[in-house]
Amino acid sequence: MARLVMKFGGTSVGDIERIRTVARRVAEEAAEGHQVAVVVSAMAGETNRLVDLCRQIAPMHDAREYDVVVSTGEQVTIGLLSMALQALGVEARSWTGWQIPVRTDVAHGRARIQDIDTAELIHRMEQGQVAVVAGFQGIGETDNRITTLGRGGSDTSAVALAAALDADRCDIYTDVDGVYTTDPRIVPKARKLARITYEEMLEMASLGAKVLQTRSVEMAMKHAVRVSVRHSWPQYWAVPGTLVCSEDEIVEKEVVSGITYSRDEAKVTLSRVSDKPGVAASIFGPLAEGNINVDMIVQNVSEDGHSTDLTFTVATGDLDKAVSLLEARRDDLGYSDISSDSNVCKVSVIGVGMRSHAGVAQTMFKALANRNINIQVISTSEIKVSVLIAEEYTELAVRALHTAYGLDAA
Amino acid sequence: MARLVMKFGGTSVGDIERIRTVARRVAEEAAEGHQVAVVVSAMAGETNRLVDLCRQIAPMHDAREYDVVVSTGEQVTIGLLSMALQALGVEARSWTGWQIPVRTDVAHGRARIQDIDTAELIHRMEQGQVAVVAGFQGIGETDNRITTLGRGGSDTSAVALAAALDADRCDIYTDVDGVYTTDPRIVPKARKLARITYEEMLEMASLGAKVLQTRSVEMAMKHAVRVSVRHSWPQYWAVPGTLVCSEDEIVEKEVVSGITYSRDEAKVTLSRVSDKPGVAASIFGPLAEGNINVDMIVQNVSEDGHSTDLTFTVATGDLDKAVSLLEARRDDLGYSDISSDSNVCKVSVIGVGMRSHAGVAQTMFKALANRNINIQVISTSEIKVSVLIAEEYTELAVRALHTAYGLDAA
Repeated sequence: MARLVMKFGGTSVGDIERIRTVARRVAEEAAEGHQVAVVVSAMAGETNRLVDLCRQIAPMHDAREYDVVVSTGEQVTIGLLSMALQALGVEARSWTGWQIPVRTDVAHGRARIQDIDTAELIHRMEQGQVAVVAGFQGIGETDNRITTLGRGGSDTSAVALAAALDADRCDIYTDVDGVYTTDPRIVPKARKLARITYEEMLEMASLGAKVLQTRSVEMAMKHAVRVSVRHSWPQYWAVPGTLVCSEDEIVEKEVVSGITYSRDEAKVTLSRVSDKPGVAASIFGPLAEGNINVDMIVQNVSEDGHSTDLTFTVATGDLDKAVSLLEARRDDLGYSDISSDSNVCKVSVIGVGMRSHAGVAQTMFKALANRNINIQVISTSEIKVSVLIAEEYTELAVRALHTAYGLDAA
Repeated sequence: MARLVMKFGGTSVGDIERIRTVARRVAEEAAEGHQVAVVVSAMAGETNRLVDLCRQIAPMHDAREYDVVVSTGEQVTIGLLSMALQALGVEARSWTGWQIPVRTDVAHGRARIQDIDTAELIHRMEQGQVAVVAGFQGIGETDNRITTLGRGGSDTSAVALAAALDADRCDIYTDVDGVYTTDPRIVPKARKLARITYEEMLEMASLGAKVLQTRSVEMAMKHAVRVSVRHSWPQYWAVPGTLVCSEDEIVEKEVVSGITYSRDEAKVTLSRVSDKPGVAASIFGPLAEGNINVDMIVQNVSEDGHSTDLTFTVATGDLDKAVSLLEARRDDLGYSDISSDSNVCKVSVIGVGMRSHAGVAQTMFKALANRNINIQVISTSEIKVSVLIAEEYTELAVRALHTAYGLDAA
């Protein structure tokens, strides 16, 4: 008998029939004797509808009132799912964020969970009642008003609840049956991973694999919550998903666990920036103030020895803003030329095994060179190597690397 | 400077443009220096959509979960209206039932308000903040769960809030510009009443004039809340509506204030019921147990002197059930025949002036006799006389009575 948190997203509860299907899955787990809490999102499309109403009434609106409106989406789902469970003979009740309560800070529209009071939930779960909890919402610590965690926050709600309940596992039901070595749409030989570490998942999540929200993985790692990614369709219920867990739980570590790519990258190059202390700060300061995240950065000594070329990447949507911010400061920064390119892609190899294996980067460079793919920028961390390449080579590069690291399914 | 509660129903807040219009009206009152609380319903159609979701997921469902789902309709409106007010530069914030809190009993789906905590609201209203309050909802006293007051409960919320706030007036904005002497669709010469007493309004409300919910009028009378019925469209804002108030506030009392009619009536006649003690109880007991409201009752001594004929009316929708309940007990009740007729209409004349004027009923009977309209059943109370007639004479009877009591507009 275990204590489980199960999370179902908007598509899984998108209509009455799907809510009934979710209820059947929850009933199965309850019938096994598990203590179950279910975290749900708003029905698919509902959050967008509510956000749209807010925008229509006032483009600039009070984030506290936005939370009042948008939090209703999850509230509808918890009521309906509780009814569906009761119709199956499962004892269940719904819980809004303020009822539990899930206390958050008062950063309305993007609040962070501070504390979850679980005494009453645990008491009822021990007596066999399923707790049906609204994801994505809480109550502000100091203002006692409804808060929301920001888009995609239901994963975070589920993991935070699992941590607070000291749950044995947090099952995230989604539209894929697990985490793959790479995108199966590009590499048909991609394999589903049985287990992956938090660190690897974090790199995967932030590098473009859209299985779990980054924040939820950070929280899982911090509180050592075992997260299982599973498919929400009935035909997959018997299939194990991918377990995201700590390194200790993984006996056979692969050197490389996955290959990811992100096309949402744009490259900016400043030529002949004067090579003196403080120049990097004077360039990246204005970008940070403009809320632009800079990802990869490379600095080369230029031929004349007195100046330097600086290349960095930003999200495609931030490119125009970044360029105009830097052009406005051209005189201060003293560069000779600015150029940009959004037809680029970042490809990364990820694996905690890299820490103890040499030559991982070399394998990557060789595989890409063999296909005549030029590497424009390189960046590395303890458990990943990323390269920026021309966007047209994306699929070719991902396939080559998947093979080179021995990840292809037999 | 006054303290006002303003209430807007589902049609008045039916879309973004209408919510903006409501905000303009509220802003006008706030600009006059009044302290304002606004009570709103769900956007038109929204409550039906939510109720339908509940019915689809489970025809028989937990009323507590129903309240969780259905209460979201008003929650959306209060957020949007607060945003619209803020966009006009009016300080405003939304309040759900549990935030105020509006404490109710735990009869989920049809809860009754017990108590409203107004200290914080008054504090903020005194500082110029408009309170935007979700109608139709509260929080259960003993279970701390969301409750709803039942359909049409927003009028009741508004009046209860006005009572708790000790407001100078409760303005109910609706789709008519006041209370008329009778239905203007039948009598073009119907006049809008400047004032009407609670007692009269109560008779009007329960007799088919659908301006205010009966429960809200009862509550207004109990707490002496002055209620003004007004049109929500901007072209009517300068037009005074009808004030529902106590008799003391009405200087010139008319003998008859209004004529109402209700087609939702059906007549049942039991012939030759044995005329002995307890027979009425044995007939109406089963109907009460079957949740059937019996309205008018007449008992005549029959020709033989040993038995009696009994006629009564029920709502049309209850007719079949009433007849079959009585047929099932035919042997116990010992009547010779049962007959029914749903082609009947109840017409009533209402006025507190009747108390001090004789001959009011006589005027009615004469006016109907002059048109050859046969009276089937008569019932009276202190401030009304009702007659049951064949449905086809409805309009003729209402017009004749409107003229007979001198109510026609000049």
